[in-house]
Amino acid sequence: MTKGRLEAFSDGVLAIIITIMVLEMKVPHGSEWSDLKPILPVFISYVLSFTFVAIYWNNHHHMLHAAHKTNGPVLWANVHLLFWLSLFPFVTAWMGENNFTTRPVALYGVVSLMAGVAYYILAHRLTDLHGKNSEFAKALGRDTKGQLSVIIYFVGIGLSFVQPLLGLASYFVVAIMWFVPDKRFENKDSPLK
Amino acid sequence: MTKGRLEAFSDGVLAIIITIMVLEMKVPHGSEWSDLKPILPVFISYVLSFTFVAIYWNNHHHMLHAAHKTNGPVLWANVHLLFWLSLFPFVTAWMGENNFTTRPVALYGVVSLMAGVAYYILAHRLTDLHGKNSEFAKALGRDTKGQLSVIIYFVGIGLSFVQPLLGLASYFVVAIMWFVPDKRFENKDSPLK
Amino acid sequence: MTKGRLEAFSDGVLAIIITIMVLEMKVPHGSEWSDLKPILPVFISYVLSFTFVAIYWNNHHHMLHAAHKTNGPVLWANVHLLFWLSLFPFVTAWMGENNFTTRPVALYGVVSLMAGVAYYILAHRLTDLHGKNSEFAKALGRDTKGQLSVIIYFVGIGLSFVQPLLGLASYFVVAIMWFVPDKRFENKDSPLK
Amino acid sequence: MTKGRLEAFSDGVLAIIITIMVLEMKVPHGSEWSDLKPILPVFISYVLSFTFVAIYWNNHHHMLHAAHKTNGPVLWANVHLLFWLSLFPFVTAWMGENNFTTRPVALYGVVSLMAGVAYYILAHRLTDLHGKNSEFAKALGRDTKGQLSVIIYFVGIGLSFVQPLLGLASYFVVAIMWFVPDKRFENKDSPLK
Repeated sequence: MTKGRLEAFSDGVLAIIITIMVLEMKVPHGSEWSDLKPILPVFISYVLSFTFVAIYWNNHHHMLHAAHKTNGPVLWANVHLLFWLSLFPFVTAWMGENNFTTRPVALYGVVSLMAGVAYYILAHRLTDLHGKNSEFAKALGRDTKGQLSVIIYFVGIGLSFVQPLLGLASYFVVAIMWFVPDKRFENKDSPLK
Repeated sequence: MTKGRLEAFSDGVLAIIITIMVLEMKVPHGSEWSDLKPILPVFISYVLSFTFVAIYWNNHHHMLHAAHKTNGPVLWANVHLLFWLSLFPFVTAWMGENNFTTRPVALYGVVSLMAGVAYYILAHRLTDLHGKNSEFAKALGRDTKGQLSVIIYFVGIGLSFVQPLLGLASYFVVAIMWFVPDKRFENKDSPLK
Repeated sequence: MTKGRLEAFSDGVLAIIITIMVLEMKVPHGSEWSDLKPILPVFISYVLSFTFVAIYWNNHHHMLHAAHKTNGPVLWANVHLLFWLSLFPFVTAWMGENNFTTRPVALYGVVSLMAGVAYYILAHRLTDLHGKNSEFAKALGRDTKGQLSVIIYFVGIGLSFVQPLLGLASYFVVAIMWFVPDKRFENKDSPLK
Repeated sequence: MTKGRLEAFSDGVLAIIITIMVLEMKVPHGSEWSDLKPILPVFISYVLSFTFVAIYWNNHHHMLHAAHKTNGPVLWANVHLLFWLSLFPFVTAWMGENNFTTRPVALYGVVSLMAGVAYYILAHRLTDLHGKNSEFAKALGRDTKGQLSVIIYFVGIGLSFVQPLLGLASYFVVAIMWFVPDKRFENKDSPLK
């Protein structure tokens, strides 16, 4: 089944994204605790992005586990998702280094939003391929969480122009909401494998 | 089948190339939109290279899916392809940071051209191995797109000495041409798997 | 079996962590042996961390080899382990660049300790899933080494405030203790595969 | 078979080593051909190291293809090999940036030599495991090339103190000698798979 290599490539890209973000935490020259202080916002930013990428890996894993086949549109929808996720190291560092000011927080939200939209598109390309009445489509269900995330991102982007910490808080809400792995696919593991 | 590890290694290298390019977008110190302006050409450059590497991954995936075996010349032809692709982060950054001036745009074309030639060599080593009348050779067909790409790259390199944006436009034409995944192999998925 | 992708993602992350740490050894400009001298502590730091990550890979490999299944809590316990391991490049560089002073050595110990705790949690989530009387639980046994490591890390963190080299020595003791691969799982390879 | 994950981890590490070396080619600020001149030695250095890592991947691939099993000593011999290979990005950059002066060329040779020794140890741990009269041991044969490489590296390190370019030339001789993939294992692909 051709999906094996799609998973391998996605795993590779996600593993690299999640790991190179740590390179943005520039090692300070002094060796006092106070020398770590300027890195704290970058660290918080890193924790948030690490969680998001892990959530994407987790959901991607469950979704592709439920799929039996891929085609051209699915491959490209997947590349499109990876593109937005690949921008996380950049927006994570910009947000962290500027200590959560308005525009970096807003841009972080835009990239998160686009990744959410890209995931939605990928899910729909897979549904198109498997059919509206397929086991896959039933496993996917209504995707309420995915749609809710997009709405919260929108709100968060807006809020970041009022008070950036409110925007940031919105993104944390999305992360917490997804932290529980997606039961929809997990329950279906045995029949669909 | 030994091709499994060839795919795994190629996936790894391609996943890293596509992801480390983002490190060339240096995070600006200010937090205004205007601070992002100098990064815009690097970003455009990144989008182009991301697309190219994704196209190579996609076509490589389809081509190796159609292959049943590998040998020494195939392994080395593959390493040769990966070598040229590994130079993408360098030429991407040089082109982006110099805002699309002549020589960087021309060198980007040279590396793209060499990668195209290396892909052509890999396809032919695989055809040699499988035989001129094999299913693989039929699946590969005449490779009109591959040959056309090489010609457009040549033209693009020349044009970049007249007006670098024309050279750049040529590379985008190649990217768009390949965007549609290679139907030749895709149609053959089921019989050749 | 869904554990395949968990292993693939973990392998990817561990491979990247172990490799990017070498980027922290900044290439000196001069070409005398004496130009390498300031890099020596970073190198020693690198050797220690390379060994730790290799030990984690090795034990992770044996532990997952013995497992037959995964679930949500296991996936998240694994991501949690990878998070702490992803901080190794940062603490390795901070400790090396500051020539093993108190706070960097202590922080290195804290990250090592948290990784040890995360590994312990992962082992227990897997035991919960497989059952207290499963082959897996028997293979895991009492995990004396894992508990001993956590104690030594605690002692090492404390010692680093007295004399950082004593803290460092404690971490080396843990590394040497683990160097012998975990016999518990290895002996069970054939029946559990 | 447990060797699958050993291959996957090694592929990951080798793929990253081969790719991050390109990051040492610092992008120049100017956009003239002359701005690329200082990068030329780094590029030559990169080509040599890319070839070496590709040779190791190729031989590693063939050797593990011939193996049916692994154990603790094999896993650690493999990690030991990866350790020396992980130093390639550092010595490649040091040699390139100093334009092939004595000590960097000599150190490059030392790391290459140690990688060669580590490969030899790995081959012997695998032979110990499979038995002196196994198919694997027959496939490995006398390993004349491996022993010859170690001798040439020794000579090269010595020569680099006379004239560094002679040392460099020795390393190129080794690379060319290995360029032809190892026939020993390749011929045995079908019976041993």
